[in-house]
Amino acid sequence: MVNVGVIGYGYWGPNLVRNFMEVPGSTVAAVSDLREPRLAEVARRYPTIRTTRNADDLFNDASIDAIVIATPVFSHFDLAMKALQAGKHVLLEKPLTSTSDQAKQLIDEAARRKLVLMVDHTFVYTGAVRKIQELVSSGELGDIYYYDSVRVNLGLFQHDVSVIWDLAVHDLAIMDHLLDAKPCAVAATGISHLPGQPENVAYITLFFEARQIAHIHVNWLAPVKVRQTLIGGSQKMIVYDDLEPSEKIKVYDKGVNMTRRSEDVYEMLVSYRSGDMWAPRLDATEGLRAEAAHFLECIASGEAPLTDGHAGLRIVRLLEAAEKSLKARGQIVEL
Amino acid sequence: MVNVGVIGYGYWGPNLVRNFMEVPGSTVAAVSDLREPRLAEVARRYPTIRTTRNADDLFNDASIDAIVIATPVFSHFDLAMKALQAGKHVLLEKPLTSTSDQAKQLIDEAARRKLVLMVDHTFVYTGAVRKIQELVSSGELGDIYYYDSVRVNLGLFQHDVSVIWDLAVHDLAIMDHLLDAKPCAVAATGISHLPGQPENVAYITLFFEARQIAHIHVNWLAPVKVRQTLIGGSQKMIVYDDLEPSEKIKVYDKGVNMTRRSEDVYEMLVSYRSGDMWAPRLDATEGLRAEAAHFLECIASGEAPLTDGHAGLRIVRLLEAAEKSLKARGQIVEL
Amino acid sequence: MVNVGVIGYGYWGPNLVRNFMEVPGSTVAAVSDLREPRLAEVARRYPTIRTTRNADDLFNDASIDAIVIATPVFSHFDLAMKALQAGKHVLLEKPLTSTSDQAKQLIDEAARRKLVLMVDHTFVYTGAVRKIQELVSSGELGDIYYYDSVRVNLGLFQHDVSVIWDLAVHDLAIMDHLLDAKPCAVAATGISHLPGQPENVAYITLFFEARQIAHIHVNWLAPVKVRQTLIGGSQKMIVYDDLEPSEKIKVYDKGVNMTRRSEDVYEMLVSYRSGDMWAPRLDATEGLRAEAAHFLECIASGEAPLTDGHAGLRIVRLLEAAEKSLKARGQIVEL
Amino acid sequence: MVNVGVIGYGYWGPNLVRNFMEVPGSTVAAVSDLREPRLAEVARRYPTIRTTRNADDLFNDASIDAIVIATPVFSHFDLAMKALQAGKHVLLEKPLTSTSDQAKQLIDEAARRKLVLMVDHTFVYTGAVRKIQELVSSGELGDIYYYDSVRVNLGLFQHDVSVIWDLAVHDLAIMDHLLDAKPCAVAATGISHLPGQPENVAYITLFFEARQIAHIHVNWLAPVKVRQTLIGGSQKMIVYDDLEPSEKIKVYDKGVNMTRRSEDVYEMLVSYRSGDMWAPRLDATEGLRAEAAHFLECIASGEAPLTDGHAGLRIVRLLEAAEKSLKARGQIVEL
Repeated sequence: MVNVGVIGYGYWGPNLVRNFMEVPGSTVAAVSDLREPRLAEVARRYPTIRTTRNADDLFNDASIDAIVIATPVFSHFDLAMKALQAGKHVLLEKPLTSTSDQAKQLIDEAARRKLVLMVDHTFVYTGAVRKIQELVSSGELGDIYYYDSVRVNLGLFQHDVSVIWDLAVHDLAIMDHLLDAKPCAVAATGISHLPGQPENVAYITLFFEARQIAHIHVNWLAPVKVRQTLIGGSQKMIVYDDLEPSEKIKVYDKGVNMTRRSEDVYEMLVSYRSGDMWAPRLDATEGLRAEAAHFLECIASGEAPLTDGHAGLRIVRLLEAAEKSLKARGQIVEL
Repeated sequence: MVNVGVIGYGYWGPNLVRNFMEVPGSTVAAVSDLREPRLAEVARRYPTIRTTRNADDLFNDASIDAIVIATPVFSHFDLAMKALQAGKHVLLEKPLTSTSDQAKQLIDEAARRKLVLMVDHTFVYTGAVRKIQELVSSGELGDIYYYDSVRVNLGLFQHDVSVIWDLAVHDLAIMDHLLDAKPCAVAATGISHLPGQPENVAYITLFFEARQIAHIHVNWLAPVKVRQTLIGGSQKMIVYDDLEPSEKIKVYDKGVNMTRRSEDVYEMLVSYRSGDMWAPRLDATEGLRAEAAHFLECIASGEAPLTDGHAGLRIVRLLEAAEKSLKARGQIVEL
Repeated sequence: MVNVGVIGYGYWGPNLVRNFMEVPGSTVAAVSDLREPRLAEVARRYPTIRTTRNADDLFNDASIDAIVIATPVFSHFDLAMKALQAGKHVLLEKPLTSTSDQAKQLIDEAARRKLVLMVDHTFVYTGAVRKIQELVSSGELGDIYYYDSVRVNLGLFQHDVSVIWDLAVHDLAIMDHLLDAKPCAVAATGISHLPGQPENVAYITLFFEARQIAHIHVNWLAPVKVRQTLIGGSQKMIVYDDLEPSEKIKVYDKGVNMTRRSEDVYEMLVSYRSGDMWAPRLDATEGLRAEAAHFLECIASGEAPLTDGHAGLRIVRLLEAAEKSLKARGQIVEL
Repeated sequence: MVNVGVIGYGYWGPNLVRNFMEVPGSTVAAVSDLREPRLAEVARRYPTIRTTRNADDLFNDASIDAIVIATPVFSHFDLAMKALQAGKHVLLEKPLTSTSDQAKQLIDEAARRKLVLMVDHTFVYTGAVRKIQELVSSGELGDIYYYDSVRVNLGLFQHDVSVIWDLAVHDLAIMDHLLDAKPCAVAATGISHLPGQPENVAYITLFFEARQIAHIHVNWLAPVKVRQTLIGGSQKMIVYDDLEPSEKIKVYDKGVNMTRRSEDVYEMLVSYRSGDMWAPRLDATEGLRAEAAHFLECIASGEAPLTDGHAGLRIVRLLEAAEKSLKARGQIVEL
């Protein structure tokens, strides 16, 4: 039985507590949060969990094996470093850290101490993304031509980070997991519509060495909620709509063939292939449940998690580059 | 009765012929096309229309009052210039010309001869865009924060121009019509997935002087057809889905308010407003029908069309800038 | 070349004329209609077609091989009988006739004269229904448990027949085509909301000898257009949505299994099977085009059409029974 | 503080416990269930709640003020009668009882003892149905022409009651709440596809004195989940789709007008009115939460609940009549 301490009981913390309470092999021993009313909420729902306003109580508690951190990103590094130094395994809410330098320090510290360092890229553990990963890696889509994702809704505005760090992080994490190739450059544009606030709309283009492109559109000020990703391959194409209740993934046997009739490009014949559509049945397990179980397995086996510190670092680097480009009105940033 | 000559009977020409045959006040006297089978098709459907492989026959025909051109864009300038010089009013399929310089020459020629020069920005004449225009100009949306459009589908690849000139031209024309402010800079990214072919995926960001942004996503290689535009205002927001059979426009009484609690930005309170949704009834007249009627009215009145040469020129300038940025991996191009 | 005469150029007639003009192997020689403005419309669109207010002109015209009738149903019998007696092949708009007795007389007359008698059950010839037919007859769905169809919209109210004769006829014709088993009894309920007018809402249940049921919901006074059919089988189930632009048919690998744990029914274990969904690519040919071609083939070969007089008669019998039950507030009518 | 005892912790019980734990003014003191594992589940989630396999413990507990019953319907009467006789207020899951006679006895017993008797017609308390009720009762829809509801999905088959008692009960309860007029007759058809099991598909028509009709389609063996109700009025029409995440209600300003041109019905002119669509913002409070609060208010005030015993009785009568008609292949049953 792994004893888990959770730091931060805001928007996401309750989901983490619920899952580590319910997944076999772990229990939540203690929760810390700076806000008394949040701790009262914990006590009301889970009378067996200890609560504290001081995260140090968790680090100092020898009975606690692992620390799960769901606080604002600026506090991730300090809390995670203390947790590692106290000998605890660490699961951090996305994004891993505020800077890639911090991420590297955490990776080193965890490696030195042989502790598990994992980042909560939740979507990677959903049935939908696991199925897409299967289809991509099996070669069924052919060469991946593009990855295009839209993640927009109304709220929740954040004051300390732009919409890139809040929403695009999900798409970058999914993309990083699905594509073998890694981006070589980033260009991002966007705007803030509320004075003094970070950007609430952003568009990110990711360039690759090969004939591949990715684009992410994130927006906190959209009238409707959209969670749609198009993945275009040379053989097949996927539409992944995370808001669909059951058919989240649709695989289209569609594409384009080019036949060279002569040297003249005007003589190239482009023909369209349009076949069946197929929506595979997906494992409906909550992503966070599978993720919690994976964290426990990695603690037991010592193996690196699917979303380890290196994955977290890759995403932080992309976020840093996108943010830099955003400030320079789309100026390309090489990686 | 305005006698119309139509040049080009390919993809779009038949729609032009049909509308100028059916709209009161005009008839199609002659059609020219380089391809005999296309002319045979005209003869079969409209036995009263004269056909010719030589466009000059139309310019030389004194009974013809107006020339409608639906040929590949590279031929627009020459044909339109000849038509104007022959004293004909001209309606050109979008985009107006291949270069802004050509557009300026046509504008000058038409002005000198007091002839109508109009560009076929069809969507401007649809019930949906006219209703949005009404809502935007009435101030009902408040300040316009962003214009975001997606226009993707499978095919029809073109060999001579990129997807920007083929698809984004529609979005640029609609945006130009709806927004008072004009863009001050453009950044575009994209890729070609077929060797030797123009870009088939592109993302365009348009920057404005004010706190406003626009973005257009176009793709010839998407598994599904999408025609969706989000227009965010400080008061209300619109979702315009052109594929909806009847409720193409949805107006959301949604938004965000910011209350300053203190000087500290972390003390800013962002609150969300979420009210009713409303789908106004739209005039179902085919856009091209309304456009044909407008062309005839302008010929009669001598007034400038809604989509005159200047509108056409503005769009060609945006296309040129976007294409230039696209070639430079998103390097910003000032307008 | 089959010379076709078309009687009736109202709502559906123009589609028939267009198809028999365009399909290889036939041309429309003449159109008759009682209304001069409709004939003028024919003349405007098709200068080569003769027009007349007198249908007898078509029967007397020896150059005409086949008569296509698209008039109100009450006139079907007289016109079709005259056409057959004049030695013409006949294609009648649905429903075949106003009474089953009339249908029988036409079948006999056509048989005696070895002429083709066909009824325009258009949907039978669409790619969607042909694909469903393929799936049903291959046994892929298992035993067919139910056929449930909804066909509702606003308008077009008719004055002489109820919504059953106007809309349900489509569903009955599709069902008759798809299911081997034929209904043994009918119960129908419904109402008229406009005084003095026929029923504009109706619900029809069809009983079968086997463990099978069918139900049809038709409504002329619905705020939205719905064209949706559910076909439940013991192995798979189909959702057929005719308003979907491309994925009209979705095949669900879903069902239920029952395991007997003991004699006690409370000990029956019902388990659910939920697999992939699959949307087969469909032939996009217009149904009416395929139907016109099929009519011509049957004229050439002398074979009975898929929707011959007998199919037309079966549907008229169902309509008569449903109408009778409707008048008796759902009283069952045995067939 | 009202102390609540809950009997039955199966599918619906957990929702009742959660709501009576969270709504201000009540707490759950005890839960009874015949199955130990269910009680263990209660203990794990709510350590403060007493559990017992014997429902009598709840009736005998003087500290308990109200009993909430979520057991199979055959046990409702006995449990509710005992609870009333023990002086407890009673909230019963739908349907109220197995027979209308039982319902009458409960009503009498509760009246005699001045106790609240309420039936859990949950949907009546949702924001969606409350908004529709507002629109109907304000006269905004005009005369109500029809009420048409579809409630289909795969599972959960029940062994003791047909799909009518399980699913149609929801639609009947909503309809009863919305329409002033009450049905005067019922006709129902349906079938069982699993040998020895109750009907899993059913169609119910409800007749009214006025020019009004209602129809309910329920099915446990459908490949897709549908929860859609059409309400047609002489002025406006509503589409209520309970699966829509936010815009559950759409109000269409559509309809039909009839103009009498002469005495001849063929001279009646039916014209169609098609205006805006409007989706009012809905209160997103969980229906069951509002219902729990309403139960507590009625206990405090002594007023009759919106869904009191009489409402429950009306629905049981409709269910009995529908079941009777179902067994007689749609034979009409007068109420």
